This record gives sequence, structure tokens and C-alpha cells, in this order.
Amino acid sequence: MGLVLADDLLGRGLQRIQREIDAAFDFFLPVPEDSRAPLIEAMRHAAIGGGKRVRPLMLVTVAEMYGASRQSALRAGCAIEAIHCYSLIHDDLPCMDDDELRHGKPTVHLAFDEATAVLAGDSLHALAFELLASHETSTDPFIRSEMIGALAIASGHNGMAGGQMMDMAADTEKLDLRTVTKLQQLKTGALLGAAVELGAILGRVPEEGRGHLRAYARDVGLAFQIADDLLDAEGDEALAGKALRKDEAQGKATFVSLMGVDKAREQAHALSEQAIGHLGQHGKEADLLRSLARFVVERDC
Amino acid sequence: MGLVLADDLLGRGLQRIQREIDAAFDFFLPVPEDSRAPLIEAMRHAAIGGGKRVRPLMLVTVAEMYGASRQSALRAGCAIEAIHCYSLIHDDLPCMDDDELRHGKPTVHLAFDEATAVLAGDSLHALAFELLASHETSTDPFIRSEMIGALAIASGHNGMAGGQMMDMAADTEKLDLRTVTKLQQLKTGALLGAAVELGAILGRVPEEGRGHLRAYARDVGLAFQIADDLLDAEGDEALAGKALRKDEAQGKATFVSLMGVDKAREQAHALSEQAIGHLGQHGKEADLLRSLARFVVERDC
Repeated sequence: MGLVLADDLLGRGLQRIQREIDAAFDFFLPVPEDSRAPLIEAMRHAAIGGGKRVRPLMLVTVAEMYGASRQSALRAGCAIEAIHCYSLIHDDLPCMDDDELRHGKPTVHLAFDEATAVLAGDSLHALAFELLASHETSTDPFIRSEMIGALAIASGHNGMAGGQMMDMAADTEKLDLRTVTKLQQLKTGALLGAAVELGAILGRVPEEGRGHLRAYARDVGLAFQIADDLLDAEGDEALAGKALRKDEAQGKATFVSLMGVDKAREQAHALSEQAIGHLGQHGKEADLLRSLARFVVERDC
Repeated sequence: MGLVLADDLLGRGLQRIQREIDAAFDFFLPVPEDSRAPLIEAMRHAAIGGGKRVRPLMLVTVAEMYGASRQSALRAGCAIEAIHCYSLIHDDLPCMDDDELRHGKPTVHLAFDEATAVLAGDSLHALAFELLASHETSTDPFIRSEMIGALAIASGHNGMAGGQMMDMAADTEKLDLRTVTKLQQLKTGALLGAAVELGAILGRVPEEGRGHLRAYARDVGLAFQIADDLLDAEGDEALAGKALRKDEAQGKATFVSLMGVDKAREQAHALSEQAIGHLGQHGKEADLLRSLARFVVERDC
């Protein structure tokens, strides 16, 4: 992956969280000396040493803005990243997107086999909730339970998995912009929203104080997906570490196919600025979130 | 499925819980009017109208023994059954056991398609934790969080999914009895153990008061699996509602291949009686658990 970042604050933030998340998964996933070893190796293949860690960074930043400990927030960050990683393993399967490359490495079903990939995804899925339910993530069971509820809803049939299903239907039906927007709000937006939500829960932000954070997440999520579509249309495969030009080849309705490249880019930047606008009540402590909103539309991977 | 039960108490108990779990999933899974519809239909196909519901019955019985409300226990029972159903969908996939029949119906990947089956499993997995995290399951967040932690551990790489991985390895390696026992304790035993554990958590049984319940679950779990191996070797496919004679065809090490039919049957009955022995401190309120321990070794499906 080629991350060239003009923004030092974000560059340092991403490097730090990538190191921390890698170390945490390494700690959570020791390889046992029995025939489960390939399963845990496959989980490690997917969870360690790859990925921008945008969701954990969002979660940790919001949590720290409101005084939660980085240690707690990192565990919750691993939980949301475990969900993200499991979804990539399953999305890459031959019966789904049939992808060969992820984060510049062979996908899990190629590095291992399909059955192991299914189980590794399932096991990362369970690990997410194991982490969130642990006393070490928060000593307050109410906080643990609220985070779990939010993450479960965001990742299930009314969230990420539902969005993935709509995306599969998009292969055969021609969708309009409203439907593509709804699809992407579920497929990508729900989990980015959960990152911000879990951070707010850890920071004990009351429901009525979360509106601007949710608005930020919604705009960033949509900007992120438009940027993803642009990347698919125009990006560099070597930098992206995955196959590109898939949407066009499949004749799939995306923001780019519906709006055109220029309009899509304009819209992504407008959403990014709008996201930053929601953070007006915060000072320097939200600078990383502001940089992140710019980064998601400027990234090359 | 052909359930012929000599035991009226158990027969009524199973019929009642089957009706209740079906009704609950029907309520939890309304079909939406968008392109997610096939996903929710696939979840319903797997979760409604099939299965003995042994895990929910165990959970509800233990919870009620200790004064928890049936309403709460049923929601937790749906959660554990959602995990069980997701694991069956994924186990049945072509890349895993490649099964065509489950509960007398076509498996999910045949009734729908493989991608939908992967997502339906994932979505039932998330639903389990969504249900457990809800205030409606328990108003006490500590209870919710404890149940979630127990279920996540029991279903992940140190539980059910880990057991499934060991089972796949058993296709190529010749396992001894000790290893088959460990494999089955993870693959089947962990989730049956979680059923009893969640019931005890809901019933506010302190850790130090759960030993006999855990011992009961361990013995029933092992008896259950030996009976499953016997069923695979000797059962009736029409009654079982699934393909049989698979272990022998694959040359797989099972309790039956390692011990022989007679010894395996003897062992299953001994474990069943031993399980009942652990319930000595309970009166009539545990009769259903006693019947269940007998049922798991006498069932024909």
C-alpha cells in the first residue's frame, strides 16, 4: 500500500494505530499447538499487517476526545476491525467477489482454502463480541452492552451484511442514485457510523450529544464510498493492493457510473467539507477527525 | 423429522419451545421491501420450522429453574439458536460439508445461492448478539454482557468454530479417542455448555454454584455427539432429514469408528446417566433436563 500523506498529524496517527492494532491482534491470537492452528493462522493473515485502520482510528479519536482511555478504545477498535476483516474475507470468497488480492497479499481462501476462510471469518466475527464483552474493555457493563448492540446492528442484516446483499442484487438490476446511496450507507456507512458510535459510548457522550458525530460519520461514509468508486475507476492496482476496474467490467451502477467522474469527485469533496463542518464545536482535539475526512477522499488505496 | 417420544413431559416441552422459537424468529425477521429480501428469506429458511431446539430448551429450563422469566430466556434461547443455525448454514456450504438436505429441506445455498448462504449465516451470527445486547432480554447490563461473553467464546476459535476446524483436519489425519473427544467438546459441547451457562447467568446463579450444571452440560454434550455418530452409522435418512453414512464414506475417525457401535452406545447411555446424576440437588423442576439427557441418546434425528 502506498500511503503518501501531506498531513503529518494524520500520518503519525495512522502509523501509530496500525502498530497498535497489529500488536493487539498478535496478542489476542496466539497460534495453538493443535489442528486449529491453520484457523488461527488464517485469522492472523487477515487481521495483522494490512488495512488502513480507518475505523479504529475514528473510534479511538472520538473516545479520547471525550476522555476515555486509549487502552479501552483500542480494544473496541480491534473489535470493529475484526468485523471489518471478517467481512473482507467473506466478500473475497469465490462465491462472492472472487478476489485474489487484498492488502497486497493473497486473499485468505487462496493463502489457505475456502473452508478455512469461511471459518476464519466466522471466528473473527465472534472475536469482536468476545472483546467487547470483556471487563478489560470497559469496567461498566452498560457501556459494554451498548457497544455490542450498536456493533451487532451495524454489521447484520440491517447494516453491513444487508448492504452487501443489495450490492449483489446490483449486479443484475440497474439501480438509481437513491438506491445506490442507501446500499452504500448500509454496506460501508453502517460500520463507519458504528466506529464513531462506539467511541461516543466509551466516552459516555449522551444520546442527545451524538447528533453531530453521527452526521460527521454519515458524510465521511458516503465520501469514502464515492472515493472507493473513483479508485476502482481510476486508481493504481499496485498502490491499492487489490484488483480494480471491477465495477465497469460488471456494468455495475456506482456513484461514478451514475454521476460521472468529475461530478463524483466534486461530491466527495463537498461531503468531506460538510463532515468537517459538523465538528465546529470542537477544537484541536478533533483535528485528526478533520484530517481523516480529507484523507478518505484523497487516498490512493 | 420423526420425533417419537415416550416421555410426555419432554414431548410437550419440545413442542412448546419449537412453537415459541419459530414465532420469535418470525417476529425478529420481517421481510423488507427492498433487495435485501432474499437475505432475510434465507435467514428465515434456516431459522424457522426446523431443528429440535435442544439448546433453547436447555437454556430456558435452567433459567426458569432459577426464577428467570420465560420471556427473557426465550430471547436468549433465540440467540443461541441463531448461532447454531448460522453454523449449520456455513457447515453445509459446498466448500465445507457440501450437504443438500437439512431438517428435511434443501440447504440454504441450494434453496438460494452460495453467496446468500454466506451472508445469511453472517447475519444470523450478528442477530444473536443483537438479541443478547437488548434491554428486552434483560434489564441488567451485567447479565447481558456476561451472556454475550460466554456465547462469543463458545462459538469462536476457542469453541465451536475451532472444533469445526479440527473436524476438517480429521478428514486427512487419523485421530485418537482423546483428540476426537476434544474436537467434539469444542464443536458440539461448547455451544450446549453455553446454553446451560446462559440459563444460569439469566437465573443469577453465582459462578461457584454452576459446577453441577457445567458437568451436566459436558456429559450431555459428549453423549449427544456419540449419539450423532451412531445416527450417522445406523440411522434412517428420512427420519433424520439429512444425509447420513458420511463419516464411514470419508474414513473419518469418530466415536463409532474408534470404539465400535456397541461400546459407543454403552458409553452414550453411561454419560446420559452420569449427566442426570449431577442434578441430584434438584427436584421435579429439573425433570425436563433429566428427560433431555435421555432423549439425546435415544433420538432418531
